[in-house]
Amino acid sequence: MIDAESMLSLMKGRQSDRRYLSKPVERDKIERITEAGRMSPSACNGQPWHFVVVDDPALRDQVAAATESVILRMNAFVREAPVLIVVVREKSNFTSRAGDLIKQKDYSLIDIGIATASMVYQATAEGLGTCIIGWVDDRRIRKVLGIPASGKVELVICAGYTDNRLREKLRKPPGEVISYNRY
Amino acid sequence: MIDAESMLSLMKGRQSDRRYLSKPVERDKIERITEAGRMSPSACNGQPWHFVVVDDPALRDQVAAATESVILRMNAFVREAPVLIVVVREKSNFTSRAGDLIKQKDYSLIDIGIATASMVYQATAEGLGTCIIGWVDDRRIRKVLGIPASGKVELVICAGYTDNRLREKLRKPPGEVISYNRY
Repeated sequence: MIDAESMLSLMKGRQSDRRYLSKPVERDKIERITEAGRMSPSACNGQPWHFVVVDDPALRDQVAAATESVILRMNAFVREAPVLIVVVREKSNFTSRAGDLIKQKDYSLIDIGIATASMVYQATAEGLGTCIIGWVDDRRIRKVLGIPASGKVELVICAGYTDNRLREKLRKPPGEVISYNRY
Repeated sequence: MIDAESMLSLMKGRQSDRRYLSKPVERDKIERITEAGRMSPSACNGQPWHFVVVDDPALRDQVAAATESVILRMNAFVREAPVLIVVVREKSNFTSRAGDLIKQKDYSLIDIGIATASMVYQATAEGLGTCIIGWVDDRRIRKVLGIPASGKVELVICAGYTDNRLREKLRKPPGEVISYNRY
């Protein structure tokens, strides 16, 4: 059992880490992290996802390069992360896609968010830092990793050990977004 | 600190609960749950969300009715849940919306999924059962709760105490969706 205060502390302690130590991440940690993703809830249990763990240094560099924008000076830190988890969105099941049509929204994007959060919180419990990258070159990563055209690379999760003294202290405060019974 | 095995057990213990006890849920639990949502990561820290906690029985019944489909025989159980958390998607910030345009995807739907997962896992740590409902009548719920047209109701999270002997045992097994270094 996890007590409620510890759980909230874990979530509050998570931040988007953009510095990693080169120390490799153990495979049993990775396995628990992806297991957390795999067990996540999804619309009609469609599980519209596939996770590719990239810890081979050469492949990791190629995937990292496909998240970088030299012009916007973004995501150069991704290649520092010893592990990248590539989150591929797959076609969902029939009932979920019927729901998409009727309700005119793409539940599978929400599902991808849920599974990603599960992996990030498991990684936090494993003592790892993470950063979720949404800026990805889908086509290029698919080519590097042999992902079929039916899948779409939506996110890349960076994971690795961090130097706690170096963890970035700055984060924007969250807004007031909660109300009771009325908006 | 939460140890990694306990965290994974918590996630594996979560299921979509469709039976609730009428026992009310304490407000301090609700506050920690929504706090977990509020602290969640989002694209460019855009926080494109607003959470409305509905625990007033009359309003709760009206929101529940807006998730039900009599024809499809769906979601009649929602009115049993003592608390509903209505997840409203708001317009994100400029940088995140610029990303949407360039990358042609709606990051805010992913963000909504992440925040929802945070709330569900905090609720689990609080000893509550949950079920995420994606089948919602956005317009009707907006009217009931006074949500402005700029917001869109994407999900409703049911939360409440459950009778462990009655918890539904059946869930479809998750698929094999993890690979290493290649798809």
